[in-house]
Amino acid sequence: MAQSEIDNVRALLQSKPRPVGWAERRHRLDDIGSVWPVADDVKLETVDVDGMPGESSIAPNSDFSRVLVFFHGGGYCSGSIVSHRRMVTEAGRAAGMRTLAIAYRLAPEHPFPAAYDDSLTAWRFLRNQGIPAECIAVGGDSAGAGLAIGLIGRLRDAREELPGCAWLVSPWTDLTMSGSTFASKDAVDPIIHKEYLYELVDAYLPAGVDRKDPRVSPLYADLTGFPPLLIQVCSAETLLDDATRLANVAGAADAAVTLEIWPQMIHAWPLWNAHLEAGRRALANAGAFIRAHL
Amino acid sequence: MAQSEIDNVRALLQSKPRPVGWAERRHRLDDIGSVWPVADDVKLETVDVDGMPGESSIAPNSDFSRVLVFFHGGGYCSGSIVSHRRMVTEAGRAAGMRTLAIAYRLAPEHPFPAAYDDSLTAWRFLRNQGIPAECIAVGGDSAGAGLAIGLIGRLRDAREELPGCAWLVSPWTDLTMSGSTFASKDAVDPIIHKEYLYELVDAYLPAGVDRKDPRVSPLYADLTGFPPLLIQVCSAETLLDDATRLANVAGAADAAVTLEIWPQMIHAWPLWNAHLEAGRRALANAGAFIRAHL
Repeated sequence: MAQSEIDNVRALLQSKPRPVGWAERRHRLDDIGSVWPVADDVKLETVDVDGMPGESSIAPNSDFSRVLVFFHGGGYCSGSIVSHRRMVTEAGRAAGMRTLAIAYRLAPEHPFPAAYDDSLTAWRFLRNQGIPAECIAVGGDSAGAGLAIGLIGRLRDAREELPGCAWLVSPWTDLTMSGSTFASKDAVDPIIHKEYLYELVDAYLPAGVDRKDPRVSPLYADLTGFPPLLIQVCSAETLLDDATRLANVAGAADAAVTLEIWPQMIHAWPLWNAHLEAGRRALANAGAFIRAHL
Repeated sequence: MAQSEIDNVRALLQSKPRPVGWAERRHRLDDIGSVWPVADDVKLETVDVDGMPGESSIAPNSDFSRVLVFFHGGGYCSGSIVSHRRMVTEAGRAAGMRTLAIAYRLAPEHPFPAAYDDSLTAWRFLRNQGIPAECIAVGGDSAGAGLAIGLIGRLRDAREELPGCAWLVSPWTDLTMSGSTFASKDAVDPIIHKEYLYELVDAYLPAGVDRKDPRVSPLYADLTGFPPLLIQVCSAETLLDDATRLANVAGAADAAVTLEIWPQMIHAWPLWNAHLEAGRRALANAGAFIRAHL
């Protein structure tokens, strides 16, 4: 059952291979991510996040005073509110709170530090609405997880208050691509391969920015003082090492870390929660984690 | 509060430095582990585990038909039912089931494969009582976690039924001591240092057994087909890398893995749960995990 569900997602991905142009890639990710629609009972609202597009969601019986702010994945070059809507809205339901999805600026049109700065804009927007830091959870998948960690590091460096916790799905934490699972998982991962990531890094990083810069590769950041982290990754993805090494580095720096490794799943699998039981269970765990720490 | 609690445990350890002889070391570990007694409401019973000493425990309102079988730590050379009684009995309470603690044979008197064989004896003893494999959880800390993984690997190789899940605290998974945290955590770990572990390996492994043998170093084992694993480790221990690398290897082999890294704690901290809130919380998580998978 679960196996055939993930096979269906694999078939969907295979039926829409990744094209070459950035516009085409963005269209494809929106298409793949939104193939199963948002649940009828979720209320959506467009939000002007200090000039940046955002979207708020709330499911029935959720707490409006607490917020999960979410940075979507897509390698800093694609992904959107549309592609991740089903995942973000269901995460909010599981956490029992409001969400705010952020349409940060994308490379190559807007290279680093555009997205990195936009994550701070989103944070300030919420704080300026009077929401206490401890009532905000920060989430992200893939490149978006990198933005989430980058934001927390920036707040920590500025000695500002930090979010109550962070939730990271299939995080991309090392832009040098030194993880051993790029080789060992290459054949089973239908989405993320080294050559593609090199292309993304070239688009995202301006000349002169080190790929080990902790603002873009959180694996090399000092994670001291970080709030509790839930890291969810899976067995059939090349970024497995990026997640387990992040867990090690964060834990060694005295952050409370929970790492979950999900069998048979593929990169950012909670995207397809509508027809993937393991996606729903991962979101349920994330929701429980966020509720426990906010 | 939590900080002063762990400082008290550190002071206890410092007040009783590890002596040289094996008998003295065993006495010390019994002493340190049992400094806080077992709760009054736990029923203990001596069990003859096919000739091997064992102890069963059950807390009020627990299920007698399900069992957590536990292999204590102590580097294969020390540790006992006495040293780990408080930890095992409270784990049973948290899991809501009976426990069976095993006094497997210790090195240097009984080198490998004595303990490895004794773990199988314990398993067969429970199975021969008619307890279904899926009603048994296997647990262990430090070297005992190595025995737990070794047992599962052996059952898997023999195509036998496997336990419902495994719970591993501060697991020692690599007898080659290749983890990077032996260096980075040496100054903050009050218990486990490389020189001590080399001494243990010399006592445990007969000539001719490779330190990377998967029966003694589960980090190098094939973990395919393993049941769900909960791995709990902490930030102030040299074995942090042994745990995070095990998580990676098990997850890559399609086991469902949950890894928790606990800030500020020290090796096998749930031993001192009587006066350590983080020890009680870790046992509560372990109990919830075991209940969910049995």
